[in-house]
Amino acid sequence: MEKGIGKERIHRLEKEFLQGFVKTCGINVDLLEGGRAESSLEISKAHSQQDGFVHAGVMATMADHTAGYAAFSVVTDDFRILTLEFKINFLRPATGDRLVCRSRVIKRGKKVLVADSEVYDQREGNEKLAAKALVTLVAVPEQELLPGG
Amino acid sequence: MEKGIGKERIHRLEKEFLQGFVKTCGINVDLLEGGRAESSLEISKAHSQQDGFVHAGVMATMADHTAGYAAFSVVTDDFRILTLEFKINFLRPATGDRLVCRSRVIKRGKKVLVADSEVYDQREGNEKLAAKALVTLVAVPEQELLPGG
Amino acid sequence: MEKGIGKERIHRLEKEFLQGFVKTCGINVDLLEGGRAESSLEISKAHSQQDGFVHAGVMATMADHTAGYAAFSVVTDDFRILTLEFKINFLRPATGDRLVCRSRVIKRGKKVLVADSEVYDQREGNEKLAAKALVTLVAVPEQELLPGG
Amino acid sequence: MEKGIGKERIHRLEKEFLQGFVKTCGINVDLLEGGRAESSLEISKAHSQQDGFVHAGVMATMADHTAGYAAFSVVTDDFRILTLEFKINFLRPATGDRLVCRSRVIKRGKKVLVADSEVYDQREGNEKLAAKALVTLVAVPEQELLPGG
Repeated sequence: MEKGIGKERIHRLEKEFLQGFVKTCGINVDLLEGGRAESSLEISKAHSQQDGFVHAGVMATMADHTAGYAAFSVVTDDFRILTLEFKINFLRPATGDRLVCRSRVIKRGKKVLVADSEVYDQREGNEKLAAKALVTLVAVPEQELLPGG
Repeated sequence: MEKGIGKERIHRLEKEFLQGFVKTCGINVDLLEGGRAESSLEISKAHSQQDGFVHAGVMATMADHTAGYAAFSVVTDDFRILTLEFKINFLRPATGDRLVCRSRVIKRGKKVLVADSEVYDQREGNEKLAAKALVTLVAVPEQELLPGG
Repeated sequence: MEKGIGKERIHRLEKEFLQGFVKTCGINVDLLEGGRAESSLEISKAHSQQDGFVHAGVMATMADHTAGYAAFSVVTDDFRILTLEFKINFLRPATGDRLVCRSRVIKRGKKVLVADSEVYDQREGNEKLAAKALVTLVAVPEQELLPGG
Repeated sequence: MEKGIGKERIHRLEKEFLQGFVKTCGINVDLLEGGRAESSLEISKAHSQQDGFVHAGVMATMADHTAGYAAFSVVTDDFRILTLEFKINFLRPATGDRLVCRSRVIKRGKKVLVADSEVYDQREGNEKLAAKALVTLVAVPEQELLPGG
Protein backbone atom coordinates (compact mmCIF):
# COMPACT_ATOMS: atom_id res chain seq x y z
CA MET A 1 0.00 0.00 0.00
CA GLU A 2 2.80 2.41 0.86
CA LYS A 3 4.42 2.56 -2.59
CA GLY A 4 7.96 2.93 -1.34
CA ILE A 5 7.30 4.77 1.90
CA GLY A 6 7.97 2.86 5.12
CA LYS A 7 5.51 2.48 8.02
CA GLU A 8 7.80 4.32 10.39
CA ARG A 9 8.01 7.36 8.16
CA ILE A 10 4.22 7.33 7.70
CA HIS A 11 3.75 7.33 11.48
CA ARG A 12 6.19 10.20 11.87
CA LEU A 13 4.46 12.21 9.11
CA GLU A 14 1.01 11.51 10.57
CA LYS A 15 2.20 12.88 13.92
CA GLU A 16 3.74 15.92 12.27
CA PHE A 17 0.59 16.55 10.23
CA LEU A 18 -1.50 17.34 13.28
CA GLN A 19 -0.04 20.34 15.10
CA GLY A 20 -0.22 24.13 15.23
CA PHE A 21 -2.74 25.69 12.87
CA VAL A 22 -4.02 22.36 11.57
CA LYS A 23 -4.86 21.37 15.14
CA THR A 24 -6.53 24.78 15.61
CA CYS A 25 -8.66 23.97 12.55
CA GLY A 26 -9.43 20.39 13.61
CA ILE A 27 -8.15 18.74 10.43
CA ASN A 28 -7.31 15.03 10.72
CA VAL A 29 -5.12 12.92 8.47
CA ASP A 30 -6.87 9.82 7.07
CA LEU A 31 -4.44 8.47 4.50
CA LEU A 32 -0.79 8.93 3.61
CA GLU A 33 0.98 6.94 0.94
CA GLY A 34 3.37 7.45 -1.97
CA GLY A 35 2.17 10.66 -3.58
CA ARG A 36 -1.30 10.75 -2.03
CA ALA A 37 -2.86 12.12 1.15
CA GLU A 38 -6.38 12.46 2.52
CA SER A 39 -7.71 14.51 5.40
CA SER A 40 -11.07 15.31 6.98
CA LEU A 41 -12.74 17.78 9.31
CA GLU A 42 -16.02 17.79 11.26
CA ILE A 43 -17.73 21.08 10.37
CA SER A 44 -18.69 23.35 13.28
CA LYS A 45 -19.46 27.03 13.86
CA ALA A 46 -15.73 27.55 14.40
CA HIS A 47 -15.32 27.10 10.62
CA SER A 48 -18.03 29.41 9.33
CA GLN A 49 -18.03 32.70 7.44
CA GLN A 50 -20.64 35.47 7.71
CA ASP A 51 -23.41 33.58 5.90
CA GLY A 52 -23.08 30.28 7.70
CA PHE A 53 -21.08 28.48 4.99
CA VAL A 54 -17.66 26.96 5.63
CA HIS A 55 -15.05 29.72 5.31
CA ALA A 56 -12.93 29.65 2.12
CA GLY A 57 -9.86 29.78 4.40
CA VAL A 58 -10.75 26.40 5.94
CA MET A 59 -10.90 24.72 2.55
CA ALA A 60 -7.74 26.51 1.41
CA THR A 61 -5.91 25.33 4.54
CA MET A 62 -7.00 21.73 3.96
CA ALA A 63 -6.09 21.88 0.25
CA ASP A 64 -2.66 23.31 1.03
CA HIS A 65 -1.79 21.13 4.01
CA THR A 66 -2.99 17.86 2.48
CA ALA A 67 -1.06 18.63 -0.73
CA GLY A 68 1.98 19.30 1.46
CA TYR A 69 1.80 15.85 3.03
CA ALA A 70 1.21 14.15 -0.32
CA ALA A 71 4.51 15.83 -1.25
CA PHE A 72 6.21 14.82 2.03
CA SER A 73 5.27 11.21 1.20
CA VAL A 74 7.50 11.18 -1.92
CA VAL A 75 10.64 12.82 -0.54
CA THR A 76 13.23 11.38 1.83
CA ASP A 77 13.49 12.17 5.51
CA ASP A 78 16.09 14.90 5.08
CA PHE A 79 13.80 17.13 3.03
CA ARG A 80 11.20 19.62 4.22
CA ILE A 81 8.26 20.77 2.11
CA LEU A 82 7.22 24.42 1.73
CA THR A 83 4.33 25.79 -0.34
CA LEU A 84 5.43 28.19 -3.06
CA GLU A 85 1.90 29.11 -4.11
CA PHE A 86 -1.55 27.72 -4.69
CA LYS A 87 -4.76 28.55 -6.49
CA ILE A 88 -8.16 27.35 -5.37
CA ASN A 89 -11.59 27.53 -6.97
CA PHE A 90 -14.68 27.38 -4.78
CA LEU A 91 -17.31 25.52 -6.76
CA ARG A 92 -20.24 25.64 -4.33
CA PRO A 93 -20.81 26.85 -0.75
CA ALA A 94 -20.04 24.04 1.71
CA THR A 95 -22.90 23.41 4.11
CA GLY A 96 -22.50 19.76 5.08
CA ASP A 97 -21.39 17.91 8.22
CA ARG A 98 -17.89 17.07 7.16
CA LEU A 99 -15.17 18.05 4.70
CA VAL A 100 -12.84 15.56 3.06
CA CYS A 101 -9.73 16.57 1.12
CA ARG A 102 -7.92 14.32 -1.36
CA SER A 103 -4.54 15.37 -2.72
CA ARG A 104 -2.13 13.73 -5.10
CA VAL A 105 1.24 14.72 -6.52
CA ILE A 106 0.89 15.23 -10.28
CA LYS A 107 4.51 16.21 -10.90
CA ARG A 108 7.59 15.16 -8.90
CA GLY A 109 10.50 17.29 -10.03
CA LYS A 110 13.91 17.33 -8.39
CA LYS A 111 13.03 20.39 -6.32
CA VAL A 112 9.58 21.53 -7.32
CA LEU A 113 6.46 19.38 -6.89
CA VAL A 114 2.92 20.07 -8.07
CA ALA A 115 -0.15 18.61 -6.38
CA ASP A 116 -3.84 18.67 -7.07
CA SER A 117 -6.29 18.89 -4.13
CA GLU A 118 -10.04 18.32 -4.12
CA VAL A 119 -12.23 19.26 -1.17
CA TYR A 120 -15.54 17.44 -0.85
CA ASP A 121 -18.52 18.56 1.21
CA GLN A 122 -20.21 15.54 2.83
CA ARG A 123 -23.72 15.29 4.22
CA GLU A 124 -25.20 11.99 5.31
CA GLY A 125 -22.76 9.95 3.26
CA ASN A 126 -23.23 11.90 0.02
CA GLU A 127 -20.48 14.17 -1.17
CA LYS A 128 -20.08 17.04 -3.60
CA LEU A 129 -16.91 18.64 -4.94
CA ALA A 130 -16.75 21.99 -3.12
CA ALA A 131 -13.29 23.25 -4.07
CA LYS A 132 -10.39 22.34 -6.33
CA ALA A 133 -6.80 23.54 -6.00
CA LEU A 134 -3.46 23.37 -7.77
CA VAL A 135 -0.53 23.63 -5.34
CA THR A 136 3.15 24.23 -6.16
CA LEU A 137 5.60 23.07 -3.49
CA VAL A 138 9.34 23.01 -3.03
CA ALA A 139 11.46 20.34 -1.33
CA VAL A 140 14.16 22.00 0.77
CA PRO A 141 17.09 20.10 2.39
CA GLU A 142 16.47 20.20 6.14
CA GLN A 143 19.80 21.90 6.94
CA GLU A 144 18.85 24.85 4.70
CA LEU A 145 15.89 25.73 6.93
CA LEU A 146 17.45 28.02 9.53
CA PRO A 147 16.15 27.61 13.10
CA GLY A 148 13.13 29.86 13.47
CA GLY A 149 13.14 30.63 9.79
CA MET B 1 -12.26 58.99 4.66
CA GLU B 2 -15.05 56.58 3.86
CA LYS B 3 -15.26 57.29 0.11
CA GLY B 4 -18.99 56.81 -0.15
CA ILE B 5 -19.54 54.27 2.60
CA GLY B 6 -21.45 55.41 5.68
CA LYS B 7 -20.24 55.02 9.28
CA GLU B 8 -23.17 52.79 10.15
CA ARG B 9 -22.41 50.35 7.38
CA ILE B 10 -18.73 50.31 8.35
CA HIS B 11 -19.67 49.44 11.94
CA ARG B 12 -21.96 46.66 10.76
CA LEU B 13 -19.28 45.24 8.45
CA GLU B 14 -16.63 45.45 11.18
CA LYS B 15 -18.87 43.42 13.45
CA GLU B 16 -19.60 40.89 10.72
CA PHE B 17 -15.90 40.61 9.91
CA LEU B 18 -15.04 39.06 13.26
CA GLN B 19 -16.93 35.78 13.67
CA GLY B 20 -16.66 32.05 13.00
CA PHE B 21 -13.38 30.95 11.44
CA VAL B 22 -11.88 34.43 11.49
CA LYS B 23 -12.42 34.56 15.26
CA THR B 24 -10.92 31.06 15.52
CA CYS B 25 -7.85 32.44 13.71
CA GLY B 26 -7.69 35.65 15.78
CA ILE B 27 -7.79 38.03 12.81
CA ASN B 28 -8.83 41.61 13.60
CA VAL B 29 -10.13 44.29 11.23
CA ASP B 30 -8.12 47.52 11.33
CA LEU B 31 -9.50 49.54 8.42
CA LEU B 32 -12.53 49.46 6.18
CA GLU B 33 -13.27 52.09 3.56
CA GLY B 34 -14.38 52.36 -0.07
CA GLY B 35 -12.54 49.52 -1.79
CA ARG B 36 -9.89 48.93 0.86
CA ALA B 37 -9.57 46.83 4.00
CA GLU B 38 -6.78 46.02 6.44
CA SER B 39 -6.51 43.31 9.08
CA SER B 40 -3.94 42.02 11.55
CA LEU B 41 -3.14 39.02 13.71
CA GLU B 42 -0.80 38.42 16.66
CA ILE B 43 1.25 35.35 15.73
CA SER B 44 1.17 32.45 18.21
CA LYS B 45 1.83 28.70 18.20
CA ALA B 46 -1.79 28.23 17.18
CA HIS B 47 -0.82 29.54 13.71
CA SER B 48 2.29 27.47 13.03
CA GLN B 49 3.13 24.70 10.57
CA GLN B 50 5.58 21.83 11.15
CA ASP B 51 8.73 23.96 10.96
CA GLY B 52 7.59 26.78 13.22
CA PHE B 53 6.67 29.23 10.44
CA VAL B 54 3.17 30.71 10.11
CA HIS B 55 0.99 28.21 8.23
CA ALA B 56 0.20 29.10 4.61
CA GLY B 57 -3.47 28.59 5.49
CA VAL B 58 -3.38 31.48 7.97
CA MET B 59 -2.06 33.88 5.36
CA ALA B 60 -4.49 32.54 2.76
CA THR B 61 -7.40 33.05 5.17
CA MET B 62 -6.34 36.66 5.87
CA ALA B 63 -5.80 37.39 2.16
CA ASP B 64 -9.22 35.97 1.26
CA HIS B 65 -11.22 37.44 4.12
CA THR B 66 -9.68 40.93 3.93
CA ALA B 67 -10.26 40.99 0.16
CA GLY B 68 -13.86 39.98 0.86
CA TYR B 69 -14.42 42.97 3.14
CA ALA B 70 -12.71 45.35 0.70
CA ALA B 71 -15.35 44.08 -1.74
CA PHE B 72 -18.19 44.40 0.83
CA SER B 73 -17.17 48.05 1.23
CA VAL B 74 -18.09 48.89 -2.37
CA VAL B 75 -21.45 47.12 -2.66
CA THR B 76 -24.76 48.10 -1.15
CA ASP B 77 -26.33 46.50 1.91
CA ASP B 78 -28.48 44.05 -0.06
CA PHE B 79 -25.49 42.25 -1.60
CA ARG B 80 -23.42 39.46 -0.09
CA ILE B 81 -19.86 38.67 -1.21
CA LEU B 82 -18.60 35.16 -1.99
CA THR B 83 -15.10 34.17 -3.10
CA LEU B 84 -15.02 32.51 -6.51
CA GLU B 85 -11.32 31.68 -6.38
CA PHE B 86 -7.96 33.02 -5.30
CA LYS B 87 -4.27 32.47 -5.94
CA ILE B 88 -1.59 33.24 -3.40
CA ASN B 89 2.21 33.29 -3.63
CA PHE B 90 4.25 32.80 -0.47
CA LEU B 91 7.36 34.94 -0.86
CA ARG B 92 9.20 34.14 2.36
CA PRO B 93 8.44 32.12 5.53
CA ALA B 94 6.71 34.34 8.11
CA THR B 95 8.46 34.27 11.47
CA GLY B 96 7.56 37.63 13.03
CA ASP B 97 5.30 38.77 15.87
CA ARG B 98 2.40 39.96 13.79
CA LEU B 99 0.82 39.69 10.36
CA VAL B 100 -0.85 42.58 8.61
CA CYS B 101 -2.99 42.18 5.49
CA ARG B 102 -3.84 45.02 3.09
CA SER B 103 -6.44 44.46 0.39
CA ARG B 104 -7.85 46.70 -2.28
CA VAL B 105 -10.44 46.21 -5.02
CA ILE B 106 -8.70 46.55 -8.39
CA LYS B 107 -11.80 45.89 -10.50
CA ARG B 108 -15.41 46.59 -9.59
CA GLY B 109 -17.64 44.90 -12.16
CA LYS B 110 -21.41 44.65 -11.94
CA LYS B 111 -21.21 41.17 -10.46
CA VAL B 112 -17.60 40.13 -10.35
CA LEU B 113 -14.94 41.98 -8.35
CA VAL B 114 -11.20 41.43 -8.25
CA ALA B 115 -9.04 42.33 -5.27
CA ASP B 116 -5.34 42.27 -4.53
CA SER B 117 -4.14 41.28 -1.04
CA GLU B 118 -0.69 41.67 0.47
CA VAL B 119 0.29 39.98 3.72
CA TYR B 120 3.17 41.53 5.65
CA ASP B 121 5.24 39.83 8.35
CA GLN B 122 6.09 42.34 11.10
CA ARG B 123 8.84 42.10 13.71
CA GLU B 124 9.68 45.02 15.98
CA GLY B 125 8.09 47.57 13.71
CA ASN B 126 9.78 46.38 10.51
CA GLU B 127 7.74 44.54 7.92
CA LYS B 128 8.39 42.32 4.92
CA LEU B 129 6.02 41.22 2.20
CA ALA B 130 5.32 37.56 3.03
CA ALA B 131 2.51 36.72 0.61
CA LYS B 132 0.62 38.24 -2.30
CA ALA B 133 -2.78 37.16 -3.59
CA LEU B 134 -5.25 37.86 -6.39
CA VAL B 135 -8.84 37.20 -5.33
CA THR B 136 -11.94 36.95 -7.56
CA LEU B 137 -15.23 37.60 -5.78
CA VAL B 138 -18.88 37.71 -6.73
CA ALA B 139 -21.58 40.01 -5.39
CA VAL B 140 -24.80 38.03 -4.86
CA PRO B 141 -28.17 39.65 -4.04
CA GLU B 142 -28.99 38.67 -0.44
CA GLN B 143 -32.29 36.99 -1.34
CA GLU B 144 -30.48 34.59 -3.70
CA LEU B 145 -28.51 33.10 -0.79
CA LEU B 146 -30.82 30.39 0.46
CA PRO B 147 -30.94 29.89 4.24
CA GLY B 148 -28.22 27.42 5.17
CA GLY B 149 -26.77 27.62 1.69
CA MET C 1 -22.65 11.75 -28.14
CA GLU C 2 -23.65 15.41 -27.95
CA LYS C 3 -25.24 15.31 -24.50
CA GLY C 4 -27.86 17.91 -25.27
CA ILE C 5 -26.04 19.97 -27.84
CA GLY C 6 -27.30 19.83 -31.44
CA LYS C 7 -25.16 19.13 -34.51
CA GLU C 8 -25.89 22.54 -35.95
CA ARG C 9 -24.65 24.34 -32.88
CA ILE C 10 -21.54 22.16 -32.80
CA HIS C 11 -20.77 23.09 -36.41
CA ARG C 12 -21.26 26.77 -35.65
CA LEU C 13 -19.01 26.58 -32.59
CA GLU C 14 -16.32 24.64 -34.49
CA LYS C 15 -16.28 27.40 -37.11
CA GLU C 16 -16.13 30.10 -34.45
CA PHE C 17 -13.34 28.28 -32.64
CA LEU C 18 -10.86 28.74 -35.46
CA GLN C 19 -10.32 32.45 -36.09
CA GLY C 20 -8.15 35.38 -35.04
CA PHE C 21 -5.42 34.52 -32.55
CA VAL C 22 -6.25 30.83 -32.49
CA LYS C 23 -5.72 30.72 -36.28
CA THR C 24 -2.47 32.66 -35.79
CA CYS C 25 -1.39 29.94 -33.36
CA GLY C 26 -2.55 27.05 -35.57
CA ILE C 27 -4.81 25.44 -32.96
CA ASN C 28 -7.46 23.03 -34.33
CA VAL C 29 -10.64 21.84 -32.65
CA ASP C 30 -10.94 18.04 -32.49
CA LEU C 31 -13.95 17.46 -30.24
CA LEU C 32 -16.85 19.47 -28.94
CA GLU C 33 -19.65 18.00 -26.86
CA GLY C 34 -21.66 18.74 -23.72
CA GLY C 35 -19.08 20.13 -21.31
CA ARG C 36 -15.97 18.85 -23.07
CA ALA C 37 -13.64 20.10 -25.81
CA GLU C 38 -10.36 18.94 -27.30
CA SER C 39 -7.89 20.75 -29.52
CA SER C 40 -4.48 20.09 -31.07
CA LEU C 41 -1.55 21.87 -32.65
CA GLU C 42 1.41 20.75 -34.78
CA ILE C 43 4.50 22.16 -33.06
CA SER C 44 6.79 24.35 -35.18
CA LYS C 45 9.45 27.01 -34.64
CA ALA C 46 6.65 29.58 -34.62
CA HIS C 47 5.70 28.25 -31.16
CA SER C 48 9.10 28.22 -29.47
CA GLN C 49 10.67 30.20 -26.66
CA GLN C 50 14.36 31.08 -26.27
CA ASP C 51 15.51 27.54 -25.42
CA GLY C 52 13.64 25.71 -28.15
CA PHE C 53 10.75 24.49 -25.96
CA VAL C 54 7.12 25.33 -26.73
CA HIS C 55 6.36 28.78 -25.30
CA ALA C 56 4.24 28.83 -22.13
CA GLY C 57 1.94 31.29 -23.93
CA VAL C 58 1.03 28.65 -26.54
CA MET C 59 -0.06 26.17 -23.88
CA ALA C 60 -1.86 28.91 -21.95
CA THR C 61 -3.74 29.94 -25.10
CA MET C 62 -4.80 26.34 -25.80
CA ALA C 63 -5.83 25.77 -22.17
CA ASP C 64 -7.88 28.97 -22.12
CA HIS C 65 -9.50 28.65 -25.55
CA THR C 66 -10.37 24.97 -25.26
CA ALA C 67 -11.88 25.58 -21.80
CA GLY C 68 -13.87 28.41 -23.36
CA TYR C 69 -15.41 26.11 -25.96
CA ALA C 70 -16.12 23.40 -23.37
CA ALA C 71 -18.10 26.17 -21.66
CA PHE C 72 -19.78 27.33 -24.90
CA SER C 73 -20.98 23.73 -25.34
CA VAL C 74 -23.16 23.89 -22.22
CA VAL C 75 -24.81 27.29 -22.70
CA THR C 76 -27.51 28.27 -25.14
CA ASP C 77 -26.95 30.20 -28.36
CA ASP C 78 -27.73 33.60 -26.82
CA PHE C 79 -24.81 33.48 -24.39
CA ARG C 80 -21.20 34.43 -25.01
CA ILE C 81 -18.32 33.11 -22.91
CA LEU C 82 -15.54 35.31 -21.50
CA THR C 83 -12.57 34.20 -19.39
CA LEU C 84 -12.47 35.80 -15.96
CA GLU C 85 -9.12 34.32 -15.01
CA PHE C 86 -7.01 31.22 -15.23
CA LYS C 87 -4.03 29.59 -13.56
CA ILE C 88 -1.71 27.21 -15.32
CA ASN C 89 1.13 25.01 -14.07
CA PHE C 90 3.86 23.95 -16.49
CA LEU C 91 4.90 20.46 -15.46
CA ARG C 92 7.67 19.77 -17.97
CA PRO C 93 9.11 21.54 -21.03
CA ALA C 94 7.21 20.52 -24.19
CA THR C 95 9.52 19.26 -26.92
CA GLY C 96 7.30 16.91 -28.94
CA ASP C 97 5.69 17.04 -32.38
CA ARG C 98 2.20 17.91 -31.31
CA LEU C 99 0.20 19.34 -28.42
CA VAL C 100 -3.23 18.10 -27.44
CA CYS C 101 -5.50 19.94 -25.00
CA ARG C 102 -8.45 18.34 -23.20
CA SER C 103 -10.87 20.54 -21.27
CA ARG C 104 -13.98 19.79 -19.31
CA VAL C 105 -16.44 21.90 -17.35
CA ILE C 106 -16.22 20.93 -13.68
CA LYS C 107 -18.80 23.43 -12.44
CA ARG C 108 -21.75 24.85 -14.37
CA GLY C 109 -23.19 27.73 -12.37
CA LYS C 110 -25.88 30.08 -13.56
CA LYS C 111 -23.33 32.68 -14.63
CA VAL C 112 -19.92 31.43 -13.65
CA LEU C 113 -18.39 28.23 -15.01
CA VAL C 114 -15.16 26.51 -14.03
CA ALA C 115 -13.19 24.27 -16.38
CA ASP C 116 -10.10 22.13 -16.07
CA SER C 117 -7.66 21.92 -18.99
CA GLU C 118 -4.80 19.50 -19.52
CA VAL C 119 -2.18 20.01 -22.23
CA TYR C 120 -0.32 16.91 -23.42
CA ASP C 121 2.97 16.87 -25.30
CA GLN C 122 2.93 14.10 -27.93
CA ARG C 123 5.90 12.48 -29.65
CA GLU C 124 5.48 9.43 -31.87
CA GLY C 125 2.17 8.47 -30.35
CA ASN C 126 3.28 8.76 -26.71
CA GLU C 127 2.08 11.63 -24.62
CA LYS C 128 3.04 13.33 -21.36
CA LEU C 129 1.09 15.84 -19.31
CA ALA C 130 2.90 19.14 -19.95
CA ALA C 131 0.55 21.66 -18.34
CA LYS C 132 -2.59 21.77 -16.21
CA ALA C 133 -4.93 24.72 -15.80
CA LEU C 134 -8.00 25.81 -13.87
CA VAL C 135 -10.10 28.33 -15.80
CA THR C 136 -12.95 30.51 -14.50
CA LEU C 137 -15.38 31.72 -17.15
CA VAL C 138 -18.52 33.83 -17.26
CA ALA C 139 -21.57 33.38 -19.49
CA VAL C 140 -22.77 36.80 -20.70
CA PRO C 141 -26.07 37.36 -22.56
CA GLU C 142 -25.12 38.29 -26.13
CA GLN C 143 -26.95 41.64 -26.01
CA GLU C 144 -24.82 42.76 -23.06
CA LEU C 145 -21.65 42.59 -25.16
CA LEU C 146 -21.51 46.04 -26.72
CA PRO C 147 -20.31 46.21 -30.34
CA GLY C 148 -16.53 46.50 -30.31
CA GLY C 149 -16.43 45.88 -26.60
CA MET D 1 19.66 52.98 -15.01
CA GLU D 2 20.63 49.33 -15.34
CA LYS D 3 20.84 48.54 -11.62
CA GLY D 4 23.68 46.08 -11.94
CA ILE D 5 22.97 44.74 -15.40
CA GLY D 6 25.47 45.63 -18.13
CA LYS D 7 24.57 47.12 -21.55
CA GLU D 8 25.93 44.09 -23.35
CA ARG D 9 23.73 41.70 -21.43
CA ILE D 10 20.70 43.94 -22.01
CA HIS D 11 21.36 43.89 -25.78
CA ARG D 12 21.70 40.12 -25.74
CA LEU D 13 18.48 39.71 -23.76
CA GLU D 14 16.61 42.15 -26.03
CA LYS D 15 17.65 40.07 -29.03
CA GLU D 16 16.64 36.83 -27.29
CA PHE D 17 13.30 38.32 -26.27
CA LEU D 18 12.06 38.61 -29.84
CA GLN D 19 11.95 35.16 -31.45
CA GLY D 20 9.68 32.17 -31.96
CA PHE D 21 6.20 32.57 -30.54
CA VAL D 22 6.78 36.12 -29.34
CA LYS D 23 7.67 37.11 -32.91
CA THR D 24 4.56 35.25 -34.12
CA CYS D 25 2.55 37.39 -31.71
CA GLY D 26 4.30 40.65 -32.61
CA ILE D 27 5.36 41.53 -29.06
CA ASN D 28 8.23 44.07 -28.77
CA VAL D 29 10.52 44.71 -25.82
CA ASP D 30 10.56 48.36 -24.70
CA LEU D 31 12.51 48.29 -21.44
CA LEU D 32 14.80 45.90 -19.63
CA GLU D 33 16.59 46.75 -16.41
CA GLY D 34 17.34 45.21 -13.03
CA GLY D 35 14.11 43.43 -12.11
CA ARG D 36 11.81 45.20 -14.55
CA ALA D 37 10.71 44.72 -18.15
CA GLU D 38 8.16 46.33 -20.44
CA SER D 39 6.75 45.18 -23.75
CA SER D 40 4.14 46.31 -26.26
CA LEU D 41 2.07 45.06 -29.17
CA GLU D 42 0.06 46.76 -31.93
CA ILE D 43 -3.38 45.14 -31.81
CA SER D 44 -4.63 43.60 -35.09
CA LYS D 45 -7.18 41.00 -36.18
CA ALA D 46 -4.48 38.37 -35.72
CA HIS D 47 -4.93 38.84 -31.93
CA SER D 48 -8.71 38.64 -31.67
CA GLN D 49 -11.09 36.15 -30.15
CA GLN D 50 -14.63 35.36 -31.36
CA ASP D 51 -16.18 38.65 -30.22
CA GLY D 52 -13.52 40.99 -31.58
CA PHE D 53 -11.70 41.56 -28.27
CA VAL D 54 -8.02 40.75 -27.80
CA HIS D 55 -7.67 37.04 -27.03
CA ALA D 56 -6.87 36.17 -23.40
CA GLY D 57 -3.97 34.09 -24.73
CA VAL D 58 -2.28 37.20 -26.16
CA MET D 59 -2.36 38.97 -22.79
CA ALA D 60 -1.27 35.79 -21.01
CA THR D 61 1.69 35.42 -23.40
CA MET D 62 2.76 39.03 -22.82
CA ALA D 63 2.36 38.71 -19.04
CA ASP D 64 4.40 35.51 -18.96
CA HIS D 65 7.13 36.52 -21.38
CA THR D 66 7.68 40.00 -19.96
CA ALA D 67 7.83 38.55 -16.43
CA GLY D 68 10.39 36.07 -17.74
CA TYR D 69 12.67 38.83 -18.99
CA ALA D 70 12.26 40.85 -15.79
CA ALA D 71 13.59 37.66 -14.15
CA PHE D 72 16.39 37.22 -16.73
CA SER D 73 17.51 40.76 -15.86
CA VAL D 74 18.39 39.79 -12.28
CA VAL D 75 20.25 36.53 -12.87
CA THR D 76 23.71 36.01 -14.30
CA ASP D 77 24.46 34.89 -17.84
CA ASP D 78 24.79 31.21 -16.96
CA PHE D 79 21.17 30.89 -15.81
CA ARG D 80 18.07 30.26 -17.90
CA ILE D 81 14.56 31.19 -16.78
CA LEU D 82 11.56 28.85 -17.02
CA THR D 83 7.98 29.58 -15.97
CA LEU D 84 6.70 27.24 -13.26
CA GLU D 85 3.18 28.62 -13.32
CA PHE D 86 1.16 31.78 -13.57
CA LYS D 87 -2.29 33.12 -12.81
CA ILE D 88 -3.91 35.94 -14.71
CA ASN D 89 -7.10 37.91 -14.13
CA PHE D 90 -8.81 39.61 -17.06
CA LEU D 91 -10.31 42.82 -15.72
CA ARG D 92 -11.98 44.20 -18.86
CA PRO D 93 -12.13 43.22 -22.54
CA ALA D 94 -9.25 44.85 -24.44
CA THR D 95 -10.44 46.79 -27.48
CA GLY D 96 -7.74 49.45 -27.96
CA ASP D 97 -4.97 50.02 -30.50
CA ARG D 98 -2.08 48.79 -28.44
CA LEU D 99 -1.23 46.64 -25.42
CA VAL D 100 1.55 47.48 -23.01
CA CYS D 101 2.84 45.05 -20.39
CA ARG D 102 4.86 46.06 -17.32
CA SER D 103 6.48 43.37 -15.17
CA ARG D 104 8.64 43.53 -12.10
CA VAL D 105 10.28 40.92 -9.91
CA ILE D 106 8.69 41.04 -6.45
CA LYS D 107 10.75 38.21 -4.95
CA ARG D 108 14.25 37.13 -5.94
CA GLY D 109 14.97 33.81 -4.26
CA LYS D 110 18.04 31.68 -4.88
CA LYS D 111 16.16 29.50 -7.36
CA VAL D 112 12.57 30.66 -7.46
CA LEU D 113 11.51 34.16 -8.52
CA VAL D 114 8.07 35.73 -8.43
CA ALA D 115 7.01 38.53 -10.76
CA ASP D 116 3.94 40.67 -11.13
CA SER D 117 2.71 41.65 -14.62
CA GLU D 118 0.15 44.26 -15.60
CA VAL D 119 -1.26 44.49 -19.12
CA TYR D 120 -2.69 47.85 -20.17
CA ASP D 121 -5.05 48.46 -23.07
CA GLN D 122 -4.17 51.74 -24.78
CA ARG D 123 -6.37 53.84 -27.06
CA GLU D 124 -5.31 57.29 -28.21
CA GLY D 125 -2.81 57.73 -25.40
CA ASN D 126 -5.18 56.69 -22.61
CA GLU D 127 -4.70 53.37 -20.93
CA LYS D 128 -6.71 51.01 -18.74
CA LEU D 129 -5.54 48.02 -16.73
CA ALA D 130 -6.85 45.04 -18.73
CA ALA D 131 -5.15 42.11 -16.98
CA LYS D 132 -3.02 41.39 -13.95
CA ALA D 133 -0.86 38.32 -13.38
CA LEU D 134 1.33 36.68 -10.75
CA VAL D 135 4.10 34.58 -12.31
CA THR D 136 6.38 32.04 -10.58
CA LEU D 137 9.67 31.36 -12.35
CA VAL D 138 12.71 29.21 -11.76
CA ALA D 139 16.33 30.01 -12.57
CA VAL D 140 18.04 26.92 -13.99
CA PRO D 141 21.82 26.64 -14.58
CA GLU D 142 22.32 26.58 -18.35
CA GLN D 143 24.12 23.23 -18.35
CA GLU D 144 21.09 21.56 -16.72
CA LEU D 145 18.91 22.35 -19.75
CA LEU D 146 19.53 19.38 -22.01
CA PRO D 147 19.70 20.14 -25.75
CA GLY D 148 16.18 19.97 -27.11
CA GLY D 149 14.75 19.67 -23.65
